[in-house]
Amino acid sequence: MRIAIAQLNFHIGNFDGNVRKMLDAVAEAKAAGADLICFSELATCGYPPRDFLEFDDFIVQAEGAIAQLAAAAQDIAIVVGSPSRNPVIEGKDLYNSAYFLADGAIQQVQHKTLLPTYDIFDEYRYFEPASEFKVVEYRGKKIALTVCEDIWNIGNENPLYTICPMDELQPQGPDFILNLSASPFAHDQAEQRIHVVRANVERYGIPMFYVNHAGAQTELIFDGGSLVLSPDGKLYDELPYFEEALRCYDLDEVMAGGRERPQDKHKMRLIHDAIVLGVRDYFGKLGFSRAIVGLSGGIDSAVTTVLAARALGPENVRVILMPSQFSSEHSIADARDLAENLGIAYDLIPIADIYGAFMDKLSPIFPARPFDDAEDNVQARRRGVILLALSNKFGHILLNTSNKSEMAVGYGTLYGDMCGGLSVIGDVYKTEVFELARYINKDGEVIPENTIVKPPSAELRPDQKDSDSLPDYTILDEVLFQYIEKRQGPKELIEMGFEEALVRRILRLVNINEFKRHQTAPVIRVSPKAFGMGRRMPIVGKYLS
Amino acid sequence: MRIAIAQLNFHIGNFDGNVRKMLDAVAEAKAAGADLICFSELATCGYPPRDFLEFDDFIVQAEGAIAQLAAAAQDIAIVVGSPSRNPVIEGKDLYNSAYFLADGAIQQVQHKTLLPTYDIFDEYRYFEPASEFKVVEYRGKKIALTVCEDIWNIGNENPLYTICPMDELQPQGPDFILNLSASPFAHDQAEQRIHVVRANVERYGIPMFYVNHAGAQTELIFDGGSLVLSPDGKLYDELPYFEEALRCYDLDEVMAGGRERPQDKHKMRLIHDAIVLGVRDYFGKLGFSRAIVGLSGGIDSAVTTVLAARALGPENVRVILMPSQFSSEHSIADARDLAENLGIAYDLIPIADIYGAFMDKLSPIFPARPFDDAEDNVQARRRGVILLALSNKFGHILLNTSNKSEMAVGYGTLYGDMCGGLSVIGDVYKTEVFELARYINKDGEVIPENTIVKPPSAELRPDQKDSDSLPDYTILDEVLFQYIEKRQGPKELIEMGFEEALVRRILRLVNINEFKRHQTAPVIRVSPKAFGMGRRMPIVGKYLS
Repeated sequence: MRIAIAQLNFHIGNFDGNVRKMLDAVAEAKAAGADLICFSELATCGYPPRDFLEFDDFIVQAEGAIAQLAAAAQDIAIVVGSPSRNPVIEGKDLYNSAYFLADGAIQQVQHKTLLPTYDIFDEYRYFEPASEFKVVEYRGKKIALTVCEDIWNIGNENPLYTICPMDELQPQGPDFILNLSASPFAHDQAEQRIHVVRANVERYGIPMFYVNHAGAQTELIFDGGSLVLSPDGKLYDELPYFEEALRCYDLDEVMAGGRERPQDKHKMRLIHDAIVLGVRDYFGKLGFSRAIVGLSGGIDSAVTTVLAARALGPENVRVILMPSQFSSEHSIADARDLAENLGIAYDLIPIADIYGAFMDKLSPIFPARPFDDAEDNVQARRRGVILLALSNKFGHILLNTSNKSEMAVGYGTLYGDMCGGLSVIGDVYKTEVFELARYINKDGEVIPENTIVKPPSAELRPDQKDSDSLPDYTILDEVLFQYIEKRQGPKELIEMGFEEALVRRILRLVNINEFKRHQTAPVIRVSPKAFGMGRRMPIVGKYLS
Repeated sequence: MRIAIAQLNFHIGNFDGNVRKMLDAVAEAKAAGADLICFSELATCGYPPRDFLEFDDFIVQAEGAIAQLAAAAQDIAIVVGSPSRNPVIEGKDLYNSAYFLADGAIQQVQHKTLLPTYDIFDEYRYFEPASEFKVVEYRGKKIALTVCEDIWNIGNENPLYTICPMDELQPQGPDFILNLSASPFAHDQAEQRIHVVRANVERYGIPMFYVNHAGAQTELIFDGGSLVLSPDGKLYDELPYFEEALRCYDLDEVMAGGRERPQDKHKMRLIHDAIVLGVRDYFGKLGFSRAIVGLSGGIDSAVTTVLAARALGPENVRVILMPSQFSSEHSIADARDLAENLGIAYDLIPIADIYGAFMDKLSPIFPARPFDDAEDNVQARRRGVILLALSNKFGHILLNTSNKSEMAVGYGTLYGDMCGGLSVIGDVYKTEVFELARYINKDGEVIPENTIVKPPSAELRPDQKDSDSLPDYTILDEVLFQYIEKRQGPKELIEMGFEEALVRRILRLVNINEFKRHQTAPVIRVSPKAFGMGRRMPIVGKYLS
């Protein structure tokens, strides 16, 4: 038996486009002699469809897509993820299903059992879990169909679920496992996936074909990297990351095993490539091609600009330099050097007198108080207005340049430097932004060395430095990581050796700035715990604040 | 037996404050001779605690709160909602529980069974459902403890769950039902609650004491209105809406029934009072007292200002009038009249020349293109910068004045008039804003008549009217209501008689503007389907767009 797996880039709700892609892949697989082709989870409608699932019309369209694919299942079987209706009155109205299509018809439907409802996942919001388990018999083989999370409940110390779908299917003697996934990227996720797939293969003694979605949906990057594991636990094949691919395998050869082909998974390489895909798909799927960025000469806007240029092409990125009275000479020079290194167009717009126009209005009302956040923020917001006006006039999308550390502690101006349609590095801590800059420069200087080595500054006041108001980034980022990613509380952090006052101050900053993050652009997720849909916090809470 | 119920205003994560409130209520109930006092769902930690539940420290604090309350349970039983740990390794780590405290100790813990995971609810994200059901025996009575949703699975045509907790408890012969709720307000929710409580009472033939939370948590208003129903199905008592209350009942009298005391539930009254509580608690719980609003002379900012003045006191609301070259004379007069009617301070800041300062910079870069959204948005954003500068300088919170209709179709400027810490009327359609204005004026003119009767206009261009670019609000709002609240698709809307092109245009506007709503302030929820946490849509979707 020859089995094809296709990791494709689907678009949520674009049923026609998604079906067309799959029909092309079916034709290619047939030409390669495949008996069966497997696509990823909810491939017809794209993942995650979120509350579109509540519209009957959306489900009707998904059913139409399945009908088209079923008609094309001639001399080949098609395995594809799509929502299906729960015919029982009680319970949720839908299942998250794997359809087995052959001989021009739906032959069997296996529903997903384990419905992730944590972090970015909301599946129990929509779906009823499966209660029946039946292998598919096809051309003399028995196939265990599983959907994403269904294979993740083994070998955990603290399992989230009380059932294991493969344990239910195992007594029926399956020859191999198909897994249809939409597994979002985090920099450590690829290794975990291999670990989990291997644990299944070793436990059940049969090979697995694991098919992931490859494409970005706003904040979520589905990184492909589909897997084929042999019964000996070896990684028979690993599809490329961050791009579409179709490959065909002879089942007997996979059964024989003995082959191992792991890919390089250097953290910064993965983060870099994930963000490039995230930016490219955000623009492509919204029908935009051009980005605008405010370039300050600092490292955040520099890294953002490079990633945008790599995603969209340098000809599609426009940068604006907006020096004020507090901007240093080197900032302008560094920004200009970067634009020239990348070969992108830039405009220089000195903006000191716009600040003056605002202060003319505000000074009579402002009391004789010292310069404070109010003035700082006017400076940041005036830049936002300029960038947004250009983006409106020319049809650019403004990219947000905030990093995760400053988003965490609220070191950014809402409606100022926090503007933008997409947060490019909002899940990258400041210390990681430096690593990413070094990675970008690995084959030669793209980001000016001075941008990387100079002390970070918002340049809203004379000689201002981030370290004037924030702890050293090395310590800040470690505390943030333990609090945000690892959910450590104040007691645990203090036990780790961090100073109590510092811990209380940082946690308080994180919590009182929830209102700012609530109004931020979607953040491309590259860590296991990003700001946004995967981290849901009360705004008016009175906890560690 | 005398039973006290207390609907209190808890603050998420403020364990000390919440326990103090409950201890005061316990003392009051004891003084009134109560045998038992019942509080609402997750009363110790506040509802909804969201991802704070993932922090062990948070659960430790909840356990500490229970220990304090247990110690106070002397000569009275205390029934209180709090998270508890799931001792079984498999499944979610927590339960959403009702604790029965008496004789200084935890006597029994009944977990919630039905975990709402739809709209604004995410309970299955955190909690494992109950699998054991046991009535509490206390002073010769058997008590069925239920938590919120547990009583909502009866009499539904399309039940969400496959189990009914009261059916499990019924065979143990309970004498009455206690229900601990945190049921958020929507304008039709109070009637539904009475209907559901009555259906339970009639089915099981025993009285119910239904205790709701009373207070606002950012976007969610918990409206109190706790209920006592007698076995004859009559509404024995209904506690006040939108405020704290404690009442004590003789069980025999409740059993006797025959008494019915429903309250007025006029839609606009409920919406008005809900928003006033929402604004008051947002400020109070964040530790702010003063609001700032940009007053245009139009109806949205007028209604927002009145609601803010009623929530915070007129002395705590500051309004800014910012006429531009396109503002009409009557706009300034209407805004000024409103400020004077309310007795609030206002400043007049003409801003035409700030626009000029921006255009001086932008004109050399803008090509010779007609005036478009770019210029409109500079106008709106310059107002935002002024309001935010004042709010930063004086410690106000800026209130957002967008209504639901314009949020739906994206008729608002991101980072301009869409700025603000809280969206006050973002769940009120434009046609309802007019109704609300009439309700506000019911005892005399507060909002100038001219503000209500003149045609709506953003006043960003000469003689601009909303009707130049939007359908008539009567039609627009009906289509939006059917699409948003009723989840009707294009086919159903066209079948209802709406013109196809109009339907397609409106649905497209709703869907392509998801990116704007993603960055909006939290919206006070007054309808069954508000923008925000209860409506989760993809941004890069390609569906009806």
